[in-house]
Amino acid sequence: MQRILNIETVKYLGKKVKVCGWVNTRRDHGKIIFIDLRDRSGILQVVSEPNLVKGVKEEDVVEIEGEIKERPIKMINPEIETGRIELSARNLQVLSQAESLPFDIKDLKLNLPTLLDYRPLTLRNSQIRAIFKVQEEVLNSFRKTLKDLGFTEFQAPTIVPANAEGGAEVFHIDYYDYDAYLSQSPQLYKQIMVGAFERVFTITHVYRAEPSVTTRHLSEYTSLDVEMGFIDSWQDLMSTCEIITRNIFSDLQKKYQKELKMFNAVVPQLGEKIPRLKMREAQQIIFERTKRDNRKEPDLEPEDEKEICKFAKEKYGSELIFITHYPTKKRPFYTYPDPEDENYTLSFDLLCRGLEVVTGGQRIHQYKKLLENIKKWGNKPKDFSFYLQTFKYGMPPEGGFAFGLERTVKQILGLENLREASVFPRDMERIDQRLSLLQPKKEKNLKKKKRK
Amino acid sequence: MQRILNIETVKYLGKKVKVCGWVNTRRDHGKIIFIDLRDRSGILQVVSEPNLVKGVKEEDVVEIEGEIKERPIKMINPEIETGRIELSARNLQVLSQAESLPFDIKDLKLNLPTLLDYRPLTLRNSQIRAIFKVQEEVLNSFRKTLKDLGFTEFQAPTIVPANAEGGAEVFHIDYYDYDAYLSQSPQLYKQIMVGAFERVFTITHVYRAEPSVTTRHLSEYTSLDVEMGFIDSWQDLMSTCEIITRNIFSDLQKKYQKELKMFNAVVPQLGEKIPRLKMREAQQIIFERTKRDNRKEPDLEPEDEKEICKFAKEKYGSELIFITHYPTKKRPFYTYPDPEDENYTLSFDLLCRGLEVVTGGQRIHQYKKLLENIKKWGNKPKDFSFYLQTFKYGMPPEGGFAFGLERTVKQILGLENLREASVFPRDMERIDQRLSLLQPKKEKNLKKKKRK
Repeated sequence: MQRILNIETVKYLGKKVKVCGWVNTRRDHGKIIFIDLRDRSGILQVVSEPNLVKGVKEEDVVEIEGEIKERPIKMINPEIETGRIELSARNLQVLSQAESLPFDIKDLKLNLPTLLDYRPLTLRNSQIRAIFKVQEEVLNSFRKTLKDLGFTEFQAPTIVPANAEGGAEVFHIDYYDYDAYLSQSPQLYKQIMVGAFERVFTITHVYRAEPSVTTRHLSEYTSLDVEMGFIDSWQDLMSTCEIITRNIFSDLQKKYQKELKMFNAVVPQLGEKIPRLKMREAQQIIFERTKRDNRKEPDLEPEDEKEICKFAKEKYGSELIFITHYPTKKRPFYTYPDPEDENYTLSFDLLCRGLEVVTGGQRIHQYKKLLENIKKWGNKPKDFSFYLQTFKYGMPPEGGFAFGLERTVKQILGLENLREASVFPRDMERIDQRLSLLQPKKEKNLKKKKRK
Repeated sequence: MQRILNIETVKYLGKKVKVCGWVNTRRDHGKIIFIDLRDRSGILQVVSEPNLVKGVKEEDVVEIEGEIKERPIKMINPEIETGRIELSARNLQVLSQAESLPFDIKDLKLNLPTLLDYRPLTLRNSQIRAIFKVQEEVLNSFRKTLKDLGFTEFQAPTIVPANAEGGAEVFHIDYYDYDAYLSQSPQLYKQIMVGAFERVFTITHVYRAEPSVTTRHLSEYTSLDVEMGFIDSWQDLMSTCEIITRNIFSDLQKKYQKELKMFNAVVPQLGEKIPRLKMREAQQIIFERTKRDNRKEPDLEPEDEKEICKFAKEKYGSELIFITHYPTKKRPFYTYPDPEDENYTLSFDLLCRGLEVVTGGQRIHQYKKLLENIKKWGNKPKDFSFYLQTFKYGMPPEGGFAFGLERTVKQILGLENLREASVFPRDMERIDQRLSLLQPKKEKNLKKKKRK
């Protein structure tokens, strides 16, 4: 007999079926045993006499044959899709036995480090699985919108020859007889691709050797990168970013109600249009609201990002806001300066519920201007000669932006820590397990790093 | 006026339009200048009087306004979609000037190293762009089939704590105060995911420190990884692999005729069913056909792979063939041994036109058996304790496989070198540019590596 999924059993009332899955719960009621069987489609209640399920325990993997029957009225469960039926078991085979569990998978009361130490097991919890179904839909929606808008998907490389962007810390690789690094962004490659395909996107991993542990950073994360040529104005970039964002929210709203509910989450509220505010204006507003004076700072602090989102929600009914015009000296060499004030750039961040989820801007597309900036930023043009070909041989006005996948999911579901939104998070203390449990620290390396 | 794409101009006969793009060619005929304008949608012929396009040259980026007219009958070009019309230019603006080109982009006669040295420029060639449109469609088709079959997409990490699979060479990363490596395969992670989602796939980059330069290897490539639980038999894996493969070919056949034609390529021929042959049987056949006796070798040599594909085409009308039952000692610790002969495994490769494009097999899902094998292969169970949780707490019979994206594209289009199918290929001599041009060799490192 062909196995069917739990969710399909509702179409088999009165018929014999075979189902497979994990034993989610077992409840013994004397002569009747209830098993909730879990498979990728959901839960199915199985009723059995005791002999048939002797020794069967939670997380055992089983194959069960039996007949689909209506549940007694008192036992109907409107919360689940198979809540009106049950499987009366006739035959059961254990495919794989589970050892006794270290905790209840269905009701996790673990601190985050322990939850991650046991990731292979805690992933089986329905709420945790929901995080990664939502993550998958964010990807789907992102890709669909961009393909509809004529963007080409490409594979950005992650091994790079130099630390192109400066700024955040970079991981070094022993690359044959040479030095190489892990990419902090596919920036240069997506610009090169614009020179051939006009509109491109890539879903790629990027790496940041963040020297501290925060709730907002990962050492490896997924970047949803977009770049487009022939823009009329840098405002086009924010408009495209807004279309993608709206589609992600509405796709989740339509298809992932169950998952959102598990987190008491609703998708972020958006007004008519996501408001756009210059960084200096935002700082002035924050000052007026809180008396906290960060008006001379070159960036928004985490508490500022929260405050300005509060403001946007109150004033515009939007839980998202674009902050624009970051200072030139705080942005990479390729960022387009504002022609009206060259101390600021045509750049933006998109904040969602108090956290930056997108960063972007217009790029310098003029070869000579770009060459100048490379030098001004203290880099050697020779190190960028590959990239510079793009601009030397004709490049349209262009720009782009990137979503942090894990941050986007974190903000939608209201998770406390970014690690919860990464299935296998890496940080300075963890690769799968806590590194200190696996390896001795290398003090020598530490010194070497500081010397650099 | 809103810019429209070249391809859209056919709907604007007799109307004024604005188009943008690169100057693909310029032909001067005295008082009339012809420009072929290239944008992401294709080519549009522009007709202009000389003054308007003074100084305009190939690869300049321009914006042109004018009127769409029918071409004179003699000038109709049935080969392109805009072949019956042309734009009569009224206004032209140069958005960005190109320096003079080092070679003709439209007719590349470069050796591969030079072609790659100039990747940002050579990518603009229509045939080269076609490679990456085909690559994109392979991804699309792969994802669509798997989503239709109930697979969940996930993000596999690429920084890993140890060289799990042994075998091929691995890249070392300075990871804070610890050692880490670049992943050679998402194998362990996709198995962990099966424990929670049953059926999963990931599109991820994997890394091989190949110590030589061949036409078949890259240091970073894209792996399309699939893993599925609750298989009835390991034959299910090959069946799923075959469905994906057929869909990729038929999607390309339907939508990418133009691109295939540029390479004089047709999608590989498939018979009723892709033939399945044991490795030892294949070696016997090769021996009989060529008198080359590799019957005791533990794997197929490149020339064997070519010969057995020839055989499959002649005998079964299939340019693909599954080779199964590779020797246990040549496969990783998690590979399921054949119950009928434990010296061989329930593993397979899919060869396409003489090259392996997929590798896969059933995995050991029994905790104790897996633990034993980890030791037998000379590994420490402690290093696998994270992964082993999956099997300790109930795992169904399962297996999977992975397509090499670049190899798949190479074989479909009949490219000579795998590097042609990677937009930014990395090997021991190249990251974007030839490394020897950028850095001195590190002799010290070489010694260190040999010591390991």
